Amino acid sequence: MKARDLMTALAIALGAAGAADAASPKAAVHAWRVAHEREILADFSTLLSKPNVATTLADVDANAVYISGLLEKRGFATQLLRADPGTPASVFAELKVPGATRTVVFYAHYDGQPISQKGWISTPFEPSMRTALPEAKPVDWKAAATLDPDWRLFARSAGDDKGSIQALISAFDALKAAGIAPSVNIKLLYEGEEEQGSPHFAKLVAKHLETVRGDLLIMGDGPMHQSGKQEINFGNRGITGFKATVYGPLKPLHDGHYGSWAPSPTVMIAGLVMSLRDDSGHILIPGIYDEVTPVSAADKAALAALPDVETGLKQTLGLGRNIGPGRLADGYMTPTLNVRAIHGGDDGPNAANAIATEANASFDFRLDPGETPAKVRALTEAYLTKQGWFIVRATPDLATRLAHPKIVKVEWDEGSSIATESPMDGPAAKAVAASISRTVGYPVLKLPFSGASSGMAEIVNQLKAPMVGVSIANYDDNQHAQNENLRLGNLWDGIEVYAGLLADLNW
Amino acid sequence: MKARDLMTALAIALGAAGAADAASPKAAVHAWRVAHEREILADFSTLLSKPNVATTLADVDANAVYISGLLEKRGFATQLLRADPGTPASVFAELKVPGATRTVVFYAHYDGQPISQKGWISTPFEPSMRTALPEAKPVDWKAAATLDPDWRLFARSAGDDKGSIQALISAFDALKAAGIAPSVNIKLLYEGEEEQGSPHFAKLVAKHLETVRGDLLIMGDGPMHQSGKQEINFGNRGITGFKATVYGPLKPLHDGHYGSWAPSPTVMIAGLVMSLRDDSGHILIPGIYDEVTPVSAADKAALAALPDVETGLKQTLGLGRNIGPGRLADGYMTPTLNVRAIHGGDDGPNAANAIATEANASFDFRLDPGETPAKVRALTEAYLTKQGWFIVRATPDLATRLAHPKIVKVEWDEGSSIATESPMDGPAAKAVAASISRTVGYPVLKLPFSGASSGMAEIVNQLKAPMVGVSIANYDDNQHAQNENLRLGNLWDGIEVYAGLLADLNW
Repeated sequence: MKARDLMTALAIALGAAGAADAASPKAAVHAWRVAHEREILADFSTLLSKPNVATTLADVDANAVYISGLLEKRGFATQLLRADPGTPASVFAELKVPGATRTVVFYAHYDGQPISQKGWISTPFEPSMRTALPEAKPVDWKAAATLDPDWRLFARSAGDDKGSIQALISAFDALKAAGIAPSVNIKLLYEGEEEQGSPHFAKLVAKHLETVRGDLLIMGDGPMHQSGKQEINFGNRGITGFKATVYGPLKPLHDGHYGSWAPSPTVMIAGLVMSLRDDSGHILIPGIYDEVTPVSAADKAALAALPDVETGLKQTLGLGRNIGPGRLADGYMTPTLNVRAIHGGDDGPNAANAIATEANASFDFRLDPGETPAKVRALTEAYLTKQGWFIVRATPDLATRLAHPKIVKVEWDEGSSIATESPMDGPAAKAVAASISRTVGYPVLKLPFSGASSGMAEIVNQLKAPMVGVSIANYDDNQHAQNENLRLGNLWDGIEVYAGLLADLNW
Repeated sequence: MKARDLMTALAIALGAAGAADAASPKAAVHAWRVAHEREILADFSTLLSKPNVATTLADVDANAVYISGLLEKRGFATQLLRADPGTPASVFAELKVPGATRTVVFYAHYDGQPISQKGWISTPFEPSMRTALPEAKPVDWKAAATLDPDWRLFARSAGDDKGSIQALISAFDALKAAGIAPSVNIKLLYEGEEEQGSPHFAKLVAKHLETVRGDLLIMGDGPMHQSGKQEINFGNRGITGFKATVYGPLKPLHDGHYGSWAPSPTVMIAGLVMSLRDDSGHILIPGIYDEVTPVSAADKAALAALPDVETGLKQTLGLGRNIGPGRLADGYMTPTLNVRAIHGGDDGPNAANAIATEANASFDFRLDPGETPAKVRALTEAYLTKQGWFIVRATPDLATRLAHPKIVKVEWDEGSSIATESPMDGPAAKAVAASISRTVGYPVLKLPFSGASSGMAEIVNQLKAPMVGVSIANYDDNQHAQNENLRLGNLWDGIEVYAGLLADLNW
């Protein structure tokens, strides 16, 4: 038993969570998990071996069928819901529990990000068990005497979100084996196009609203707190992004001959970036902070209760400083503007002493509940215009170039979402916090908002139900990137957390 | 006959250059060229078909041997000069002329830029004749009844500099055919590593100084004036450049979770760029303008006499404005800082809402004769340091990253050169101006400096001889880029200009 597991066990034994509850199925689930680790891993590996890149519909559909099958076998009534024929299916599964008065909707997505990133140390759809970081050496878990909880299973979607799906299925199996009935009616809604930006999901939910409706929505997406402690959140920030392209001469110019005369797009794009935000993260667009919701006393208290992770993060990330507020999550309470990329001119083998023809930068905003993407887009464009930029939507023709000294092509991302905000002190939210605290043996961390965004905002609005985010993946799971992985201990803990939610959630 | 050719002929007939001279070989050379256009083009095509990418020594040597052979056949004494065994050769050729008291050294380089750029419409070492721009359709010049002077021959080094070499050889042939003896002793110095930044050329010249010494150095490199008029210049600006890399987190971070807390390298690099120069081209490094040589009255007069090309350039280049001084060449009299490239973050298919791990920008300075590269490097680094940047020379390790909040890796280009400056009113310079004016039929344009730079600065210092730049290539020859080309009319005119310099240069 690892030191941390031992301390957790002790804490539970000693009632350290303040509300140790005999109803908690933790002990039974823990024992079942220990006895079935290898079967769970075999099942999880099979799930992860199914290619699920969001843009390949046939692969996504094969996953939906497979997951539906897993749930049917366990007694769920399943359906594949679609917004329209030819769009990705959401796996919907329902289990009515005699005597239960509440219905909890568990959300996750089963589709995955592209796998074309460089630097994968294993094959994305051939799950590979690896020793603890930083070594990450391949290890034969089937032959190993014991499974180290710090080992990690590398595969696309291991953390985001197939880990959530596996944890819930295993939690259900564990409860069944222990003869513990769920305390709530269960609905599962597993989306198949989240990594594409959920273009049809709002329509899908609207079309099947009565089917998917519930009293509480639990989001099993995203990584957990950097401290390794279980965290829940009550909302996501909104998001909108754009790409700005600025123009110089129609062909590259020798900078010796033209460098003091021809406008330089590499300089123009740098100036545009610095006009939008500064090095400290402060956004310079007038009005951008006007509609930000004030941070409540409860939010402040929750934020203050978060353990220090900043010191360790700086060390791990090699940062000699941070910007903005010293505490990471304090920054989630106001909008953020990130410069995703900046590019102009030839570098490397094609480098030349030349003035580039164009340059671009790519941005995304994370938004407060008070702000809509539409409002932020309008503020941004008004500010660019005020600075003398002539905004176009397509590459400008010669006449346009000649007529306007400073042209910027602004292309807003197709996807955007508003922020979501559920109360931290609602009865369902409090029940989730209590259940998880009982399971993990310490007061669960509460984040008023996750810093991230989610297409779930519209869904929450449609369902008119509170939402709580329950993440189980390690924070360093490399989601969206090469070498995505799930730490074994996180899967084990996740099974217990989900089992607790299924079995002892009451409000 | 094209309108421009006709006007030139008329101008000569009418003595418009103010100093029409019976000694000018123009008429004889012109007649010979018209009669031998196809032979000249066949020879030029053969020369251009020899791969000469500067980094491939065997190819470069094959060119040297071939060019030496061409010159030996014409009675020159040739040698291949090298700084050291295994370094590229300079072709040296000498012709002593009975009775001549002056020796003129003609410089050009026979090596070429890489050919890996995208967008070549023909194969770089398979010369392709094309109709006038913008059509540039392939044309069979061997079968054509007449050769349009606006046609262009596309090939690597067509303009930079094999065109100069061909023009001089053809000029020599034309004079010989007409029985006109050169008026000066001729030395040819054709470099083989200019496009690599001439790493061994200064040593080569120092080693063979007495061999290559002369009374006047004529540089046959670079494009001519945008007006299409013949131009001479009396110097080049110096050059030094660097790449700056700034650092964020050791791995890409989700900007929803970390965007208000982790420093952003894409923002840092934009800020660094804007701290060095502004949109108008003004350099912000303290002291950078302190040692700039004041513009003399003669310089001002020469600059003022340059024809308007700016209006047409803006139209051609699609520019709705210019920066800096309104006249292009006025900008050559002060240093220029160009931002060659700026890069950070993933764009396109790998774009992510992430904070990049690093970003970089690449810069080059064009320097005034008063400034040395070393001085400018020192000013730049002092300024970066004063802004809080910790300068490193290699990718920083973890301890360095943690110890310094703002780190920039500064990598100066291996090559750099000082500026060269020859007097516009020296006797040799005046003789060159007079000869070319006689040939072209109008007062040759005089540029105190070319905006460009050249490794010849050290050579000029070693030779202690005045230098005049005589360019014959069309300004839009795409030198260094894809689709390099030489306009046929420029080759024809260049033959006459070189023939004039060989035959009637006296001071």
